[in-house]
Amino acid sequence: MTVSTPVPFTADDYRARMERAARTAAEAGLAGLLVAPGPDLVWLTGYAPTATTERLTLLVLVPGRDPVLVVPALEAPDAAKATGAPALTLRDWTDGKDPYAATADLLRGPAGGREASFGISDNAWAMHLLALQKALPTTSYASLTEALPMLRAVKNPAELDLLAAAGAAADATFEEIRGVAFGGRRESDVAADLAGLLRRFGHSQVDFTIVASGPNGANPHHEVGDRRIERGDMVVLDFGGLKDGYGSDTSRTVHVGEPTDEERRVHNLVREAQEAGFAAVRPGVACQEVDRAARAVIADAGYGEYFIHRTGHGIGVTTHEPPYMIEGEEQPLVPGMCFSVEPGVYLPGRFGVRIEDIVTVTATGGRRLNDTTREMVIVD
Amino acid sequence: MTVSTPVPFTADDYRARMERAARTAAEAGLAGLLVAPGPDLVWLTGYAPTATTERLTLLVLVPGRDPVLVVPALEAPDAAKATGAPALTLRDWTDGKDPYAATADLLRGPAGGREASFGISDNAWAMHLLALQKALPTTSYASLTEALPMLRAVKNPAELDLLAAAGAAADATFEEIRGVAFGGRRESDVAADLAGLLRRFGHSQVDFTIVASGPNGANPHHEVGDRRIERGDMVVLDFGGLKDGYGSDTSRTVHVGEPTDEERRVHNLVREAQEAGFAAVRPGVACQEVDRAARAVIADAGYGEYFIHRTGHGIGVTTHEPPYMIEGEEQPLVPGMCFSVEPGVYLPGRFGVRIEDIVTVTATGGRRLNDTTREMVIVD
Repeated sequence: MTVSTPVPFTADDYRARMERAARTAAEAGLAGLLVAPGPDLVWLTGYAPTATTERLTLLVLVPGRDPVLVVPALEAPDAAKATGAPALTLRDWTDGKDPYAATADLLRGPAGGREASFGISDNAWAMHLLALQKALPTTSYASLTEALPMLRAVKNPAELDLLAAAGAAADATFEEIRGVAFGGRRESDVAADLAGLLRRFGHSQVDFTIVASGPNGANPHHEVGDRRIERGDMVVLDFGGLKDGYGSDTSRTVHVGEPTDEERRVHNLVREAQEAGFAAVRPGVACQEVDRAARAVIADAGYGEYFIHRTGHGIGVTTHEPPYMIEGEEQPLVPGMCFSVEPGVYLPGRFGVRIEDIVTVTATGGRRLNDTTREMVIVD
Repeated sequence: MTVSTPVPFTADDYRARMERAARTAAEAGLAGLLVAPGPDLVWLTGYAPTATTERLTLLVLVPGRDPVLVVPALEAPDAAKATGAPALTLRDWTDGKDPYAATADLLRGPAGGREASFGISDNAWAMHLLALQKALPTTSYASLTEALPMLRAVKNPAELDLLAAAGAAADATFEEIRGVAFGGRRESDVAADLAGLLRRFGHSQVDFTIVASGPNGANPHHEVGDRRIERGDMVVLDFGGLKDGYGSDTSRTVHVGEPTDEERRVHNLVREAQEAGFAAVRPGVACQEVDRAARAVIADAGYGEYFIHRTGHGIGVTTHEPPYMIEGEEQPLVPGMCFSVEPGVYLPGRFGVRIEDIVTVTATGGRRLNDTTREMVIVD
């Protein structure tokens, strides 16, 4: 995964994020945080190594100490150029040296003899975690999603602006794509159009351009294939990526020519479910209530078994992160959280429908960051 | 990281690889292998999920049992299309269910009450490893690089052909790039040329296009910047990616206009070091001997402190993998291994030189998979 550095942040912004993260870790009873290259690191420091390799790069945040970024000597000059670099100390290591011993030294400290527990990025490499477990057998580790799932979940106003801009670019993409020819073209052709439009509207990175026509629509993660789209097909479009370092993700389901009554009915059902999920969004409500609200509409209509995924996922410097709108997630919604509301119905061998907006929690409810029509659009 | 599925392999090829991997694991005293999305998985099954997410996808190889791929239900239809899918059993899990309990069941077995040790892909996510450690406290884990570093290192003839073809495409790229204008253009312009050429010559993925001019050349991992290349600059070019699922990686250092005597001397030195590293390649020789041979030439000339990285790394379905040509690596070379030989000299604030070929071990010595001139090329 490539993540680009967000534009409008300063070293002070990153310093404040690192301080807050360390404080949050302490409040959760953690001795510190170990942050691997990827979304956590880019969010905390602005640093995105060009490649993730077996060479250890790790940000160590211990409450009350200055942040330290362990980095391969070869990559230290690049790391030093990151926007957040002035807010941390670089500790480089050279090929052939053991980076884990040096990192272990940073983890020792006030915790003393008792077992210290660290949060570690979900996507940190297993090989690095195993080496740290070996170097410091008395430490324990928990993934950030388990230990501090909401670390990046609440967006500040600058982040919300970036997410709104990414959403607007995705909406502009939909407004253009609904005008192109679908019938007779391959899914992969329409997907290429989507990717080009996302870039034209400012995306630096395209994460997915799902074009799932006819029976392919019944597979929620069907990306794209060589199938030729035919008149009479439902087509699920689900696309997004990163613009100025923040994500977009929206889905609309269009129809090539006139739909059948059943197709209309299922599309309406999903639209109502999406509306119900959105209507459930307000501060203090548990994430699972958003899922339940959307799911109830579909279940009540007898299609419950065909809604085979959770209702949504968070979005920020990635297109896919906590919080998750799923049964069992009792995390209360907090103003500034951003996530998808994307119910769907998938009829095996026939067609699928999904409608998805990014929604942010306001002081009193929810606000959509996507707002193209949710009525069924007929395309050519 | 995206990895594309190699073209010429069949389900039987993948079955054979999985069987061999399981057997190798047993010989190493492991109870099995846990294989995460990425190069290990694509090499063993041909399956490359379009996105790596927090949803667990894991291939479980236990000697004497059929391979099982644990996969999110949403992605099961895609997984079923992988070339290697007929050689394994898919076990899908649905959002909201615990995939770790199901995976833990697969890890229990003949090992019985005693502690079983599993190899796990280097790049498996820490969150998945931690969840497995929790689900099965009596198991232990070792990264594949530690447990079975040579699992993918020895290439068969079909793989060697693909690596040779990727190398030839990279060489064709160099032959074209030496004819373009350097002086007065930005590093990023030349890098874009390199990327376009790699794609034109068949690469589906460009991993790096380093253009490091003048003082930037002294940073071995400087990728590319806005610096305008000037007459009198040394320029390190280091580029590669994947073609038909296998990697290329080559470096040449060119000069804009006539070099100084010192520049010639340093370039010659690196060329001789590269030659010495290559000459050291033959079956049975330890990897570190390749590093020593190249390093000795540079050290003897008094530039030892300016050769600040290891001499090489393996290549296959990635552009960067074991074996590593580095002091301390006692692994003997085996026919079919492929790796870079890429010494360099980096003079801070002034310039750098690196020369790199991919080399494969033959029955009697080494064979270069890159073979453009290693003399200094003068460009405009």
